[in-house]
Amino acid sequence: MVGGIGYTGVELLRLLVQHPRVRLRMVTSRSEAGRPLDDLFPNLRGMTELIFTAPDSEALAACDLVFFATPNGTAMKMAPQLLAGGARIIDLAADFRLRDPAVWQHWYGEPHTCPEVLAGAVYGLPELNREAIREARVVANPGCYPTAVQLGFLPLIEQGLVDHSRLIADCKSGVSGAGRKANVAALLCEAGENFKAYAVPGHRHLPEIRQGLSEVAQQPVGLTFVPHLTPMIRGIHATLYAERQDGTHDVQALYEARFRDEPFVDIMPAGSHPETRSVRGANHCRIALHRPQEGGTLVVLSVIDNLVKGAAGQALQNMNLMFGFEETLGLTQAALLP
Amino acid sequence: MVGGIGYTGVELLRLLVQHPRVRLRMVTSRSEAGRPLDDLFPNLRGMTELIFTAPDSEALAACDLVFFATPNGTAMKMAPQLLAGGARIIDLAADFRLRDPAVWQHWYGEPHTCPEVLAGAVYGLPELNREAIREARVVANPGCYPTAVQLGFLPLIEQGLVDHSRLIADCKSGVSGAGRKANVAALLCEAGENFKAYAVPGHRHLPEIRQGLSEVAQQPVGLTFVPHLTPMIRGIHATLYAERQDGTHDVQALYEARFRDEPFVDIMPAGSHPETRSVRGANHCRIALHRPQEGGTLVVLSVIDNLVKGAAGQALQNMNLMFGFEETLGLTQAALLP
Amino acid sequence: MVGGIGYTGVELLRLLVQHPRVRLRMVTSRSEAGRPLDDLFPNLRGMTELIFTAPDSEALAACDLVFFATPNGTAMKMAPQLLAGGARIIDLAADFRLRDPAVWQHWYGEPHTCPEVLAGAVYGLPELNREAIREARVVANPGCYPTAVQLGFLPLIEQGLVDHSRLIADCKSGVSGAGRKANVAALLCEAGENFKAYAVPGHRHLPEIRQGLSEVAQQPVGLTFVPHLTPMIRGIHATLYAERQDGTHDVQALYEARFRDEPFVDIMPAGSHPETRSVRGANHCRIALHRPQEGGTLVVLSVIDNLVKGAAGQALQNMNLMFGFEETLGLTQAALLP
Amino acid sequence: MVGGIGYTGVELLRLLVQHPRVRLRMVTSRSEAGRPLDDLFPNLRGMTELIFTAPDSEALAACDLVFFATPNGTAMKMAPQLLAGGARIIDLAADFRLRDPAVWQHWYGEPHTCPEVLAGAVYGLPELNREAIREARVVANPGCYPTAVQLGFLPLIEQGLVDHSRLIADCKSGVSGAGRKANVAALLCEAGENFKAYAVPGHRHLPEIRQGLSEVAQQPVGLTFVPHLTPMIRGIHATLYAERQDGTHDVQALYEARFRDEPFVDIMPAGSHPETRSVRGANHCRIALHRPQEGGTLVVLSVIDNLVKGAAGQALQNMNLMFGFEETLGLTQAALLP
Repeated sequence: MVGGIGYTGVELLRLLVQHPRVRLRMVTSRSEAGRPLDDLFPNLRGMTELIFTAPDSEALAACDLVFFATPNGTAMKMAPQLLAGGARIIDLAADFRLRDPAVWQHWYGEPHTCPEVLAGAVYGLPELNREAIREARVVANPGCYPTAVQLGFLPLIEQGLVDHSRLIADCKSGVSGAGRKANVAALLCEAGENFKAYAVPGHRHLPEIRQGLSEVAQQPVGLTFVPHLTPMIRGIHATLYAERQDGTHDVQALYEARFRDEPFVDIMPAGSHPETRSVRGANHCRIALHRPQEGGTLVVLSVIDNLVKGAAGQALQNMNLMFGFEETLGLTQAALLP
Repeated sequence: MVGGIGYTGVELLRLLVQHPRVRLRMVTSRSEAGRPLDDLFPNLRGMTELIFTAPDSEALAACDLVFFATPNGTAMKMAPQLLAGGARIIDLAADFRLRDPAVWQHWYGEPHTCPEVLAGAVYGLPELNREAIREARVVANPGCYPTAVQLGFLPLIEQGLVDHSRLIADCKSGVSGAGRKANVAALLCEAGENFKAYAVPGHRHLPEIRQGLSEVAQQPVGLTFVPHLTPMIRGIHATLYAERQDGTHDVQALYEARFRDEPFVDIMPAGSHPETRSVRGANHCRIALHRPQEGGTLVVLSVIDNLVKGAAGQALQNMNLMFGFEETLGLTQAALLP
Repeated sequence: MVGGIGYTGVELLRLLVQHPRVRLRMVTSRSEAGRPLDDLFPNLRGMTELIFTAPDSEALAACDLVFFATPNGTAMKMAPQLLAGGARIIDLAADFRLRDPAVWQHWYGEPHTCPEVLAGAVYGLPELNREAIREARVVANPGCYPTAVQLGFLPLIEQGLVDHSRLIADCKSGVSGAGRKANVAALLCEAGENFKAYAVPGHRHLPEIRQGLSEVAQQPVGLTFVPHLTPMIRGIHATLYAERQDGTHDVQALYEARFRDEPFVDIMPAGSHPETRSVRGANHCRIALHRPQEGGTLVVLSVIDNLVKGAAGQALQNMNLMFGFEETLGLTQAALLP
Repeated sequence: MVGGIGYTGVELLRLLVQHPRVRLRMVTSRSEAGRPLDDLFPNLRGMTELIFTAPDSEALAACDLVFFATPNGTAMKMAPQLLAGGARIIDLAADFRLRDPAVWQHWYGEPHTCPEVLAGAVYGLPELNREAIREARVVANPGCYPTAVQLGFLPLIEQGLVDHSRLIADCKSGVSGAGRKANVAALLCEAGENFKAYAVPGHRHLPEIRQGLSEVAQQPVGLTFVPHLTPMIRGIHATLYAERQDGTHDVQALYEARFRDEPFVDIMPAGSHPETRSVRGANHCRIALHRPQEGGTLVVLSVIDNLVKGAAGQALQNMNLMFGFEETLGLTQAALLP
């Protein structure tokens, strides 16, 4: 595992140390090299003896699988060497999420360094790409907002039931999405007891969502995506709006059918209001459907834990698929409520 | 003042005890009669000697003005007698907000008991009805969501710039909107570290907003209104979506012009993201405008403190208008940040 | 399981549905009878098909073990019948915690209804009473504060190293300790962004702690116990003060030796400051020791999750002991951080 | 005003822009020079046109009064020049709080640069030093913990009623005490939903409190001071423990008499539990007294808003004294509750 000192990292560690088929070989961090993991993250005391080490490509390449829980732009620099050495890769950052290197460069501000690896990477949303993930050498683990939004819109777009030129995703995230970085805006005294939108002109998850939904729609979709920061630690709530084009479908039944066999997507009874805490620490996405006042606008409510189904849990789900384990292995804990 | 043991009540008390032209005569509460105000609300210690008394219509009618900070359905039962006695009324509950008694009955579940008073009541949004408020005997103080949403949509609807059949208001409220009532859903352990939508099928503020915007549009508007509960005490953030019909207008300039002389509406610089905490304890509504990705969808961000501009502060602003005081008197405190 | 609609209940359910040796037969609740568990607690969706049922003593008596997650005074009324039927009992409420029925009546305000059962009950603090718990028919699961405070003071009292006539326990609890009851003081808008002491004149956990420590000291101890409410959901932090009587002992080594074989007590390195979140959702108690400014006052910092080691987790630990399972079975999850 | 980009700064600005006798001439900040104040702190929009400027000693010296809301070690470097130019100074940092330059150097890690100014500085706790403050050229505004702790212990020490070799101050602070600095430990995801002690071996406010109480006692006091971080923005709650030496005094009456004429110290009725929110945004210290179980240990509960009575409000109170204004001028706002 490369990185591992952020929130995605510690969450992945929490899941990995309890996974029955995983032996965690090394966790690298330049800044924390030499420090025991459980000194930085005391919730791991008694669960691991590992010590952060400086990154060593050879040692990493000798692993079966390398997770990247690093800032954007790190995995693409190390990937070719690790793949050459035989390792497979799951990148929890954004390096392999956007298919088009030019689009990647536009949103991430630097050229992509391994477009050939990018070309072979699989977008790791199991509900969409399960079979490809099993065979993938490189999995691009989806972003947190994109997971909640795509799962919420998927059946509508697949069936062409809504006007996909005018989709709206009003999303609210807990502050852990901002990472474990010293940054004034994420201080308790800035983000606590406060609510605001951010990045309304354009957020990096916009092209990722648009790419995913456009591939399903087989034509470009129009999406307005407004993320908000909400004063809590974990959780994403996506409130999705779409205009119905065909009033006759039973949308509730459609969703139930689409996700019937999905272990981690839960379609709630009609009229429900899913709560983010109902998935805190769990790998589930819970979805509820509404058509307020029997009007033309469908409202889809979709919640995940941004650090689990939106990051580390989905990475483990992808690992389970890649290595032929039971897909739910190590991911069956109930959410912590309250 | 009738009521006054809820959050709207204590906030109104905080403002009234500091208002230079107000002498607070009595605060009534059946359940707390005999108890000093500052025993229930220790922030008022040293600021008032008043004691809650049982409601006494005669004594109330002798006041110049009676505020109702009561549950819905209380003010309408006492209003005729108080008006007959010469008092004027500001109702912070919903009894006089909806013009049509049948609509009122539909949403509030009981018949309206004084439709004749209702007919003469003025909807207390100063930015829309300032002159009528000055003369009003009965002011219906707007709801919290309706204040944030109407102020945010107003210039667009007035100018007919957007498709008003398809407005969307995605609103987020702090928990104080649920009131100071023993109620499991508002416990810290239920509402804390959690985010959820509620009342998506239909919330009582929907007809109020629809009524207001339809009057401005001079035709019925179509509105999807989704309220959410956010884990903080005070604040409303309304994220408003509308489809432009006329791409040539400078919307930023339009809003700035519309609200130039409004003491409590602040149009922020283009590209801003207003924070709810920037109005905590203050009577301001701050608004910012966006047109993401230069598309056809306008996004308006509008924030208020639900207990101030969304309730007690607006009530004081209305009082100032009714009694010929400076409109901003007693309302000039800066927001508490952090 | 009797009760189960409170926070202790849902936490116990979370642990039980994942425990490999438990088959959960019934969960009773008069108020929720007929409702699926996972409708009340959506974090359990997909993990149980059970439905709340009305209490039925015969059916309960046929179980191997009955947990009471009920208000105080419930278990003592049902216990004799269940024991007669062959069931064993773990009471998570206070009915069997105080040995002396008169003391119980003084603090809980009603006579104890089964002093003969009380006489045989075992106080379920495994670190103190492990062997007795294995054989117990009735286990009194300790209170949350008493768990944190007793584990923190234990080695000092056992060794007679401090003046036990002047112990101070300054304790801070998350709001879930107040339960899932409609109660104004536990509203987010009352308990959020606020800190206060409560019950300083006398809290029901005072006699429980005093009883436990006095038994260890073999003489009455003097204890000042001040509980505080802190604006978070889970966690207890006990800050304990004691005056050293013997300055020569290495207290750090003493604690490490005392708890070396305890699976759920973690003595942190000297100089540490344990965080409540490091045990969120986990059954651990983490303890750190300080002697500020090399003075005569020892400071012990002790943290637990009030719902786990302070309630449901400790109950499961007791169950494991009573039924000969591995003591840690079902209790090995890492804490959720952040 | 020098500094002004931290929480103490913005709170001082909030109070100053509303103070009727103050004209704010300049606010300096090297890092924010050229930026409008209300761009950094949007709660000030419409209340000031000022722009941060680079520090300019000559211009500052021409002011009647200069506030320092800067990191420790800044004021002492500029003070001699400003005093020479005729300005008076209130330092909200620690530069002039400890009388002994050697002690200062021990705790703050650098030599004091103007011991001669230090010698003439007055410790700005009006309840102790009111007359000296009126005449002071330099006021050392007390720290937040020292304000809450000294006011809480004062009458007991003055009257010699307790064993002052064994005082305990268990203090809990909101996170704003850590300042508006990018710092991982103060992130919402670190400090939220968490409680911990910190700096138990020794905190810089320890010598300040010890100095103040020792001067009152006219001999060195023994103090154990344990600060804790509590997951909220504002507020300090000090829980103070002392052993009575004389059991006959009516401590409640003593405190009431001692603070009868103090405008900002509120002795609550016997048996009260003061809440930090009852002083949020206000300059009050509220104190309650307990003697649990009629034992020998007195418990004093003392709450302040760390940014107001613990910093900016007390600075304004000192300014009012220094310039002969009414002591409460600009400080009469009620606390914001909820």
